[in-house]
Amino acid sequence: MADTAERNSTTRSRSVRELVDSGHMMERDEGKDLIASDRVEGTAVYRPDGEKVGKIHHFMVGKRNGRVEYAVLSFGGFLGLGAEHRPVPWEALDYDTALEGYVLSAEEDTLKASPTIRDNERPDWDRAYAAQIYGYWGVPY
Amino acid sequence: MADTAERNSTTRSRSVRELVDSGHMMERDEGKDLIASDRVEGTAVYRPDGEKVGKIHHFMVGKRNGRVEYAVLSFGGFLGLGAEHRPVPWEALDYDTALEGYVLSAEEDTLKASPTIRDNERPDWDRAYAAQIYGYWGVPY
Repeated sequence: MADTAERNSTTRSRSVRELVDSGHMMERDEGKDLIASDRVEGTAVYRPDGEKVGKIHHFMVGKRNGRVEYAVLSFGGFLGLGAEHRPVPWEALDYDTALEGYVLSAEEDTLKASPTIRDNERPDWDRAYAAQIYGYWGVPY
Repeated sequence: MADTAERNSTTRSRSVRELVDSGHMMERDEGKDLIASDRVEGTAVYRPDGEKVGKIHHFMVGKRNGRVEYAVLSFGGFLGLGAEHRPVPWEALDYDTALEGYVLSAEEDTLKASPTIRDNERPDWDRAYAAQIYGYWGVPY
């Protein structure tokens, strides 16, 4: 599957197949599917039309099972949204290799009305909260 | 079996169930099971005897599926290990609520001989690499 160049290189992080799939050279060094946690933080979030609306501030992961459940987004300066954070189910985001960021399929009104986390708030991240957030975004928990 | 081993253990590790049974309340603000990505980074890693051996520098997560596959540990100053990073399968770490950190069950020699990532290295994070790292740590990929 991998071509000769790929087989001959043990140091390059990008597979030829990945370059073909994405149609351009990617700058990331995490390989095809994995990304460093500290690089997810700060990754841009776009709407389906390619408009940048915010970025991933951090994400919430199961301490034990290692599953990412939420991306916590910041929108300061975009769409007139405030500086507060907004939790989104991880499954509501699609990674786009061309944009090198995540796409959130949501109308502007949906985004503006979505649940927020204010600076002094500490969500419980429990089942009730999941029902609220996953429910809002229409994603099964 | 695990319960018996846990009860007989003289280490500082306590099972989650024991803490729940004793009514121990957790101080963290991430809730019972979730932790913020930027708080995993920097979390201490202990050996089963409670000795701190290093910390989680960052972790590697699937861009799309949101699964944590590796913790990348730094050991500078501990056990005479160098400053290089060492990737460990996420499943090789156990979160310990009493220690408020992760426990890595490994003999000192195993730890010292474990695969490293030098500063200028960029692992492929592909199946061959997984076979190497997960294989070394005896964890199914």
